[in-house]
Amino acid sequence: MSPKITTELLKQLRQVMKNPKYVQEPVQAYIVPSGDAHQSEYIAPCDCRRAFISGFDGSAGTAIVTEQHAAMWTDGRYFLQAAHQMDNNWTLMKMGLKDTPTQEDWLVSVLPEGSKVGVDPFIIPADQWKRMSKALRSAGHDLVPVKENLIDTIWTDCPQRPCKPLIMLDLSYTGVSWRDKITALRSKMAERKVMWFVVTSLDEVAWLFNLRGSDVEYNPVFFAYAVIGMNTIRLFIDGDRMMDPAVREHLQLDSTLEPEFKIQVMPYGSILSELQAVGAGLSPKEKVWLSDKASYALTEAVPKAYRYLTPYTPICIAKAVKNASETEGMRRAHIKDAVALCELFNWLEKEVPKGTVTEIIAADKAEEFRSQQKDFVELSFATISSTGPNGAIIHYKPVPETNRTLSVNEIYLLDSGAQYKDGTTDVTRTMHFGTPSAYEKECFTYVLKGHIAVSAAIFPNGTKGHLLDSFARSALWDCGLDYLHGTGHGVGSFLNVHEGPCGISYKTFADEPLEAGMIVSDEPGYYEDGSFGIRIENVVLVIPAETKYNFKNRGSLTFEPLTLVPIQTKMIDVNLLTQKECNWVNDYHQKCREVVGTELERQGRHEALRWLIRETEPLVRVQ
Amino acid sequence: MSPKITTELLKQLRQVMKNPKYVQEPVQAYIVPSGDAHQSEYIAPCDCRRAFISGFDGSAGTAIVTEQHAAMWTDGRYFLQAAHQMDNNWTLMKMGLKDTPTQEDWLVSVLPEGSKVGVDPFIIPADQWKRMSKALRSAGHDLVPVKENLIDTIWTDCPQRPCKPLIMLDLSYTGVSWRDKITALRSKMAERKVMWFVVTSLDEVAWLFNLRGSDVEYNPVFFAYAVIGMNTIRLFIDGDRMMDPAVREHLQLDSTLEPEFKIQVMPYGSILSELQAVGAGLSPKEKVWLSDKASYALTEAVPKAYRYLTPYTPICIAKAVKNASETEGMRRAHIKDAVALCELFNWLEKEVPKGTVTEIIAADKAEEFRSQQKDFVELSFATISSTGPNGAIIHYKPVPETNRTLSVNEIYLLDSGAQYKDGTTDVTRTMHFGTPSAYEKECFTYVLKGHIAVSAAIFPNGTKGHLLDSFARSALWDCGLDYLHGTGHGVGSFLNVHEGPCGISYKTFADEPLEAGMIVSDEPGYYEDGSFGIRIENVVLVIPAETKYNFKNRGSLTFEPLTLVPIQTKMIDVNLLTQKECNWVNDYHQKCREVVGTELERQGRHEALRWLIRETEPLVRVQ
Repeated sequence: MSPKITTELLKQLRQVMKNPKYVQEPVQAYIVPSGDAHQSEYIAPCDCRRAFISGFDGSAGTAIVTEQHAAMWTDGRYFLQAAHQMDNNWTLMKMGLKDTPTQEDWLVSVLPEGSKVGVDPFIIPADQWKRMSKALRSAGHDLVPVKENLIDTIWTDCPQRPCKPLIMLDLSYTGVSWRDKITALRSKMAERKVMWFVVTSLDEVAWLFNLRGSDVEYNPVFFAYAVIGMNTIRLFIDGDRMMDPAVREHLQLDSTLEPEFKIQVMPYGSILSELQAVGAGLSPKEKVWLSDKASYALTEAVPKAYRYLTPYTPICIAKAVKNASETEGMRRAHIKDAVALCELFNWLEKEVPKGTVTEIIAADKAEEFRSQQKDFVELSFATISSTGPNGAIIHYKPVPETNRTLSVNEIYLLDSGAQYKDGTTDVTRTMHFGTPSAYEKECFTYVLKGHIAVSAAIFPNGTKGHLLDSFARSALWDCGLDYLHGTGHGVGSFLNVHEGPCGISYKTFADEPLEAGMIVSDEPGYYEDGSFGIRIENVVLVIPAETKYNFKNRGSLTFEPLTLVPIQTKMIDVNLLTQKECNWVNDYHQKCREVVGTELERQGRHEALRWLIRETEPLVRVQ
Repeated sequence: MSPKITTELLKQLRQVMKNPKYVQEPVQAYIVPSGDAHQSEYIAPCDCRRAFISGFDGSAGTAIVTEQHAAMWTDGRYFLQAAHQMDNNWTLMKMGLKDTPTQEDWLVSVLPEGSKVGVDPFIIPADQWKRMSKALRSAGHDLVPVKENLIDTIWTDCPQRPCKPLIMLDLSYTGVSWRDKITALRSKMAERKVMWFVVTSLDEVAWLFNLRGSDVEYNPVFFAYAVIGMNTIRLFIDGDRMMDPAVREHLQLDSTLEPEFKIQVMPYGSILSELQAVGAGLSPKEKVWLSDKASYALTEAVPKAYRYLTPYTPICIAKAVKNASETEGMRRAHIKDAVALCELFNWLEKEVPKGTVTEIIAADKAEEFRSQQKDFVELSFATISSTGPNGAIIHYKPVPETNRTLSVNEIYLLDSGAQYKDGTTDVTRTMHFGTPSAYEKECFTYVLKGHIAVSAAIFPNGTKGHLLDSFARSALWDCGLDYLHGTGHGVGSFLNVHEGPCGISYKTFADEPLEAGMIVSDEPGYYEDGSFGIRIENVVLVIPAETKYNFKNRGSLTFEPLTLVPIQTKMIDVNLLTQKECNWVNDYHQKCREVVGTELERQGRHEALRWLIRETEPLVRVQ
């Protein structure tokens, strides 16, 4: 990795920062955030503006360029990578370190009095604008929206915004028609006395209309906005995608419909002016509902008195609770995914001892086996295929420079998943193809105990996921061990592999309570820098639990594992398990054998079936 | 309980709401909050203004009186009591119910356009003022500070503000002199670049100066404020308390001191004008540190640009971490407290079968035994002495109308504690003086498992208490049971029995991380409405834990029980305990026997000693 030379680019940027063609008044600083206009976690190449201007292409980072300085804020995951990728025009601001200034403090310290700080109002979320603007104002500066993105003005070979064909999902996948989703949304709007709802997240647009896309890698979404009124539906989307007769049919664009279900299709770029028009026409008490993370531009389009902002939108919450069709789809997807992984692990067991399998080859092989399964679309994230010390890098992705060969002497950690038309998967298994050490087994077993503690937990209706996080750590804590990430995230249904509003983490307190039908991951781990990484991850479905008593009729919940891939028993120190934990492993393996075994049989994958049967032999605990 | 007749009082209040002698302009509504000027949990009789105007004397409630209406907001604990105590001039606003309006919404719905809403700026915390003021302003009304408290103007027989003698604590109790505390505080102030610190909480003033008082029942505090500068100390306190030569000596008021340790004593009532003078004399960058819960009046005295507000003050945090002298004092206090309870339980075992012991008699007896112990000062809260169905009322306090006789057929729950000069105690034991049912034992055992899960938990340095809360519930949750309160609160050292900034609760996320030396309660429970209540509470000290591994050198913590009172083994279903839990109980009882037994012996309390030995026989678990 050699750093990107940015001298010329920065010179150009500093010129446009003063160019009246683009800015009303010169700006003395320009902020380049990480995201796109939809606050997506994964972004399209055309939105990688921060990577373009700086060379640093990690998933998190904010660049700020002033007349004299260029600085990049990023977190501990990316200190090394950012330092490698940026030339010495840039100062790296290591977030989380004590002496690192905040962006606001730094700006105040370097800017001449009464400066203007510019930012693209479509990229900065409204809550962030508010915080930053307040801090700058109190120091005598101004945060100003710069309508045209200044990076785009100098990015001559900027890739086009993707505009790929849409995928329609019928009722057998979604369980609910888009019309019924609109009706449900409108009833939530009526409950809150809101007249308009603005859909800004890409996965929320996709979910609402039962459509999928491929504009962003790994996330089956497409660039669009929607504005839902009590009697109108506006969909803002570009390209000839609306020419496709199947799409027109799906959205009933040419049917005679009740007017309140008639979709008006409008250009993607017209969202702002349309929303401003809505905003201008509001009468008192006509509120507009937006996520509080929507862009400053869209939030500002609605006069303040009419805004109704919430951290989670009703679509976000409805989307998280999967219905029977979605749940069945997720089950099918996970069985297919398990078939692919049985094939992979069986293959690895034979090939690894030959010393020819690298992390990249293993990742490619995993994709190959997955792609053989019905309704496979793409991977759901970049495969983390890591052996030995690479396993301790939590967000590792093998590249030629780091690519390591799997061996019988090292632990192998594979965190991978796929998008199938019927569901999204995300599974981590940690394997040893030789003989693990007692210490490796000990650590693995603590992680397993944590995994089981969450998976088997019974808890009252209304419990928030963050209250379960410590269950996953207790066995590790007892020995003075821990892992520095959350325990689980929401998983979409043929949608984003990370989705809100629920999760299991010590970091989040604003999560919504878990309820039956929600799907989250359960993925405790343990990482020993320079040696190995361990993680055991299943995707689990929240289901009602039967309990002996039923306190105040609240009802109880627990989890059902959707992931059905054997957990390597070779790595388990059985004597560290309680009988209850031992039974959990045996019951889980019995289910893997029955459900995935049947499918392997059906697909005629006899060798993988033999592997599965071998790997699901019951554990025996010596009393 | 017959309601208080408030017709005349309300008439008088409504008159002063328009009287130019007290208000610049008439106010159309007047808010009477619960608290005092120090945001205390327990308040003095002269501060019970809400009880005076309404008759309702529960610990939480806000009254609002308009020209037409009088309304009282309180929470579920007090719906019944408030309804009994208030006459029909009052509307009860049941907080937490879906249809109950917030105070702001209600005001907006009943007030004529452009109204003024008055409140005593000394009683309302600044953060609450801000929220309320914003809501009212956006509806066209104004929240206005009314300097003179309007209740006080009509409360002709208002008791005097207490002004009782002070207690001086020497180094053997406090471990640190007040001078060293001031120095430590100033270094925290320097770290944050703050020039002034305003001490507004009564327990913070008491702790800082190593003084105690008895102005408020159960809380050994006295009415005072302090303003600490980098070179000055101002103590605002009334009465002839500063005439006491011992106090003068303790505070070195007559010594030749370095000027920065010279205490200027000023009248309690002059805090506002003095703080305003400080505020007016500030030069740029001279910040003033206040709790964000300080009163609006004091917060407003400092110009906004100079305020530095935090949820927890450095005193609050320093006070929570007990030093060796305080810890030793707490240990001593808990041993004496255990002696008193051994006496009590031995006495109850003999007396209860006679049918002559009521809840009130038992509570009085507990106080009698405690008062025999060295350095006993008073109780630390109103004793919860409850049998049978009364045990299910979590904040129960026996009064003649509810007073129940203890019997061999019902569970008895005693939650009580005392202030000793060397420490504060708070302990709950649940006993049966006959034969508990299998169901009662089952529930008790789940609560015990939760208690042990917290008490024996090992967790990394830096863990916040709320992350341990679910450990206390897991055994109950497994059977579909739960309890609707937090698991633990901070405990002061001969100070308030409830103190911040740490605790163990699913409700709090803003708690400070636990660290060695902090003291909290561990008190899970289970309550069956109409039948019984179970709670097992120890006060526990956070101590370093030795672990097998020591992840990233973070260090680990665990708890040491300070409370050493037997847990009734008769109530335990041993077969529901794991061997580890069984060992915990036996080890705990062994320690009670050794430590408290020695003290009982020393005090010549032989009968109670025999009771202790009988009650601490080891449990035997049938495999």
